[in-house]
Parts: sequence; structure tokens; C-alpha cells
Amino acid sequence: MIVIDLIEATSYTAAVAERIVEGQRRGRRRGELTIATIARLAGVSKPTVSKVLNGRTGVAVETRQRVEALLREHGYRRPDAVLPAATLEVMFHGLESNQAIKIMRGVDGVARNHQLAVGFTEVDDEGTSQGRPWTEWVLARRPIGVIAVYPNITPSQHAQLAASAIPLVALDPTGQPVHPTPSVGATNWSGGVAAARHLLELGHRRIAVISGPAQYLGARARLEGCRAALDAAGAPLDPRLVRVGAFSFGAGRDFGRELLCLPNPPTAVLCGNDLQALGVYTAAAELGLRIPQELSVVGFDDIATTNWCWPPMTTVRQPFTEMGAAAASMVVALAAGEALSQPRTELATTLVVRDSTAPPSRP
Amino acid sequence: MIVIDLIEATSYTAAVAERIVEGQRRGRRRGELTIATIARLAGVSKPTVSKVLNGRTGVAVETRQRVEALLREHGYRRPDAVLPAATLEVMFHGLESNQAIKIMRGVDGVARNHQLAVGFTEVDDEGTSQGRPWTEWVLARRPIGVIAVYPNITPSQHAQLAASAIPLVALDPTGQPVHPTPSVGATNWSGGVAAARHLLELGHRRIAVISGPAQYLGARARLEGCRAALDAAGAPLDPRLVRVGAFSFGAGRDFGRELLCLPNPPTAVLCGNDLQALGVYTAAAELGLRIPQELSVVGFDDIATTNWCWPPMTTVRQPFTEMGAAAASMVVALAAGEALSQPRTELATTLVVRDSTAPPSRP
Repeated sequence: MIVIDLIEATSYTAAVAERIVEGQRRGRRRGELTIATIARLAGVSKPTVSKVLNGRTGVAVETRQRVEALLREHGYRRPDAVLPAATLEVMFHGLESNQAIKIMRGVDGVARNHQLAVGFTEVDDEGTSQGRPWTEWVLARRPIGVIAVYPNITPSQHAQLAASAIPLVALDPTGQPVHPTPSVGATNWSGGVAAARHLLELGHRRIAVISGPAQYLGARARLEGCRAALDAAGAPLDPRLVRVGAFSFGAGRDFGRELLCLPNPPTAVLCGNDLQALGVYTAAAELGLRIPQELSVVGFDDIATTNWCWPPMTTVRQPFTEMGAAAASMVVALAAGEALSQPRTELATTLVVRDSTAPPSRP
Repeated sequence: MIVIDLIEATSYTAAVAERIVEGQRRGRRRGELTIATIARLAGVSKPTVSKVLNGRTGVAVETRQRVEALLREHGYRRPDAVLPAATLEVMFHGLESNQAIKIMRGVDGVARNHQLAVGFTEVDDEGTSQGRPWTEWVLARRPIGVIAVYPNITPSQHAQLAASAIPLVALDPTGQPVHPTPSVGATNWSGGVAAARHLLELGHRRIAVISGPAQYLGARARLEGCRAALDAAGAPLDPRLVRVGAFSFGAGRDFGRELLCLPNPPTAVLCGNDLQALGVYTAAAELGLRIPQELSVVGFDDIATTNWCWPPMTTVRQPFTEMGAAAASMVVALAAGEALSQPRTELATTLVVRDSTAPPSRP
């Protein structure tokens, strides 16, 4: 693949742009028409033709159809059709992360108000995308700014974008950045406290915690929030009931089996995210344990699947759409050379009580 | 919100562009540096500075850091940083549609090879997005082409984009377009046949079918495929065991309750999509019916959730990523003025047998 030299302002669409322009030349050759000609043929004003071309309102249906018919008939192509919209890029670490759609919706809402398109890049654990460093892709696409839903940004990558005047904002459902990048997060610690208090109020004392990777500060915050709430209630977390691993269905299922097969198993499990909780659902089903009668389970994130599983899952909601919108607003401000009022914004998490939690069947 | 006049080639980034450019002027005023100056200060060649700015390889770490330090120190901003990449737009009808991510990944793979960014627009049932016709958004963003994952494109919308030389390709997991738009689909009818045959081979005869909306040809194709396979096996579909409704979890749950409460209930249910099948899972759980021992369930689509539910779901896979890639290739070809070898491509569906299907417990 050609890596284009972004110093040459003209080369940004590489080969395909030339092909597109050529296609348009051919199109125009089919009928050398101007807006003025179309307007005369249709018996309308030039602004009216412009409105039709731009899909704007304020043109009678019949008029619009007459103009469109002429445009089709004469094979009209907009000379400037290749000129693209500016893009706001969202970089995801694992698009599987069911949060992607909600985040993009939030970003999109803000982007539209600034006539920006929203693009995305998917990055793997090594920070590469289709074999190239993600920064190469971003620089090749030259967005007005980047929102990184990716916890492992290095200071040098941050510097690289800064050097190209491409503002970067970290959106961290899992981890808090360890570098100066501005960021948007959620109140993970408070979410952990709320989840643990909910189980305590139901009467649970033997509570297990499955946490996400220790290197993600967000995962640590959730775990420590649970620990603090249990300590405060005089029911300190039993180290034998703590598991730390991937934010995945598989990790939840495997840790769930371990915990539920202990001589003195927990009556409830607090999970680092919803996928881990769905894994615990499966472990319980395999062992013939009913949720919530024999086991209470709490997730974290509130992905769509929590409404489609049985029983519907009690979880801690992260406001992904609002987080995406907040990050987009920050990027747009930075791209405009404005200073941010605060480098980090944390939006509130909320406990969503559904049917996977109930009082314990045993002490 | 300002609707920008796309005829004015300069106005495409509207107000934000000016603010961005102004921000860069301020940036450059902080240090009137050229690539040449940076190169001299760093004691490297201009191409080396260019490589660092563009995130390209072939620069020693130490050299890169020295150059980046100078760029930061002097507040260098790339003069052309505002120039965006061309975008390929994907239009979704309901991003919830868990297929969105897979489709975008397929589109992205092709887009990268052409140095294109991937954008998206979400459209509601009325064909509007945040209160405006989707065509307005698309024309305001002026992508090189549009992939519509949306079944209700009107001939006039199609004409509107054609008049603006923006090629359109329909990607239809649910419906086949009724207009001349080129399209990419899956073999829905064959998928219906495969799902029904699987249940017949397991020994089921009393099989129910929950179908998607009748106006979606794709939904009809799945239903008719099931019907044909059952007829061919001498176990014709009982009209009392057919339900037609939304492609939703709720519809599946409600129809599931109805079917399972019949005097002579079905031993298996074929669903129009995975969400309906997850709804049937819930209906069965509420009635205390075990899957697959007392009821077999088959979905359609193979969304991620089918691996996270209990038991893992037998379903018919649509190759969403491959479909997205095929649609992207068609759009890029059309944008380049090339003719398509075929106006419609149908990719194969495949039956994925997991644990939600087993021989019937009763005749």
C-alpha cells in the first residue's frame, strides 16, 4: 500500500481521486451543462437548481422532479463533487466493544452541528491497524481531530498528532490516560460503590468480584469502589473471592465456574463489565444455578445485550452516548484553537436494577 | 443549523473550518517555522522531518524524538492540516442493528486501500436523521459514495444522489431494493431452507416460524425458504404456527409466548433474526421450558450475542463483513466512473449449529 506524503496537499486522495475526477470528466462530457443551462431548460432560477442539487427544502415536488429529470437526462455531474467533508475520527480498540455504536452516535450528534463527517479506525492490542501503526492511518486521513477509545496511547503518539496539529481526546470506558491527553471518562469508582451497596442492601455478605485487567485504571477503580463499600459495611472483601482478568465473556465464564465451585461459594458476583457477567450467567446455567434465586449477578456498562438475556441484568450504566458527545465537543474546541475549561470530564454512572439480583437464599 | 450551499466549493466546512484555520494561524504565529528550518535545527534532511510529521517509518527513534521535540517547542502546525480525506459514507437504519460494526469493518478494509475515511449516518423509520432528510446530510458531507443499509430508499432519493454524482449502493440484510440501485445482499431464501432442513433432520415436524416485516423482501425470502423445505419434506407449515412482526426482541418474546401456550405447541421455532430468537429464549425461560431439551430455537444473522446467551444459539450466518467489503468495492468503482459487472451481488449464508437445537422430546 502507498503511504501518501501529507506534505503534498494535492495527493490526499491518492489514485482513487484521479479516477473519480476522470469519471466526472466523462460524466460532464456526456453533456456540457452548467447550473444556468439546467435552470433555463427547467424554467426555474439558478438558486432553485442549486437547492435541488443540495437536497434542500423549499422546492415544489413537481419542480424538483423536473429539474432532476433534466440533470439525469443530460448526465450532469457536480464539478466539485470530489471535495469531501472534514472528518472527526474515532479510534476504537476492538469494535466488538458493544459500546462503539453508542459512542459513535454521541460523536455524530455533535459532528453534524459542525458539518463534520465521522470516521473510525479499529486498533488491535499492538496499536496497529491492518499491520500499520494507527497514527499512520490517522495522519493519512487527516481528520480535524481524533477521539481515542483506546487506553494505550503513548506519549510519543500523542506528540506525533500534536506536531501535526491534530487534537486528540481520550475516551476511556476502561482506563484513564497516564499522559497529558485531555479525556472523558465515567465515575467508575462510584459505580463500583453503588453496585456493592445494592447487594449489601439485599442482604448479601459473601460477595465475589471479577475485575478487568489491572493495568486499566478504570477497572481498578471499579474493584476498589466495591472493596470500599464492603469494608464500610463491615463485610470486607474475601481475597479468595476476587478474580482479575480479561473484560471478556470467556473470562467471566471461567472465573464464574471457579467461584461457584468453591467449598463456600459466593451468593453474589460483581463483574467488571457486562460481558464478564454474561459469562457468569453461563457458568451458573451449566451448574444448574438459578439467577437470581440462587445467585445474584451485577454487570457494568449496560450494553444492549443486558436487556436480551434471561433474566434481564442488573448493571451499572456508563453514559456512552453522552461521553462520545462530550469528547467530540472537546475535539472541536481544540481544533478551533480554543483552550479547554478542564482537561478531564467524568460523567456519572448509574445503577440500573433489573432481575439478576435478589436477597440471598442462604447466609 | 445552517445548511451549507455545496455549490460554493469553499464553504464545505462551514464556520468550524474558519475557526480551525484561525487556530492554526495562531499556532504558526507562535513560531514561524518551515520544514526546512526544523530540518536545519534538528540536523536532519527535510524528507526526514516530513516522515516524522506523517508518522512514517524509516526514522531512528532518537531522531524522531529530537524532531518532535523541536516541532513542539516551536509550536509548529502543518499549514495544510485542515485538508480532509475523502469519505465513503455508510447509512444505517438503526445502528442498534448489531450488524453495523461488522459491516463497517468490511467497508473500512476496502476504504483504507483507497485512502478513504469511513463516515456514517443513522436514519430513522421516516428516513430522517435528527429531523432532516438523510439525503440532506449526505449531500452536506459530500462523500465519494454512499452505502445504504436501509431498505426504504425512494427512486427520487436515488435520483437526487445520482444528480450530484454521488454513487449509491444498497446493502440489504433485510430487504431487496425495488429500484435500480446496485445492491449487495445475502442468500436469504437458501438460509431459510438450511435452517428448516436442520430441524427436519433432527426429527422435528411441528415447527413454528416467526418472520420479519412482510414488506422486507429479505424477511419474506427467509419465511418462504422455510416453507419450501417443510413442504418438500412432507411436513407442510401449519398456518397457526406462523407469526409475522418486527425484527425485535419484544416481538420474538410475545410471539414466543403465544406459540408456546398453544394447545398443541411447536417443538421448534425458526426465527427471522437473532433478536426474535433471543425473545423466544426469554419466553421459554418464563414458561420453564428448557432449550434445547424441550424446545429447539434457530436464529438468523449470527450477531455476537448468539455466543453470549445460554445455550449458545444455532443460527444462519450472514457474512456482514464480506457484504460491507463488496458494497464498498462497488461504490469505489462507481465513483471512478467504472461500470459494474453486475448490479446485484448475493453472498452465501451458512448454517451455524450450536446448542439451541436437538431432537424433539415429543412427536
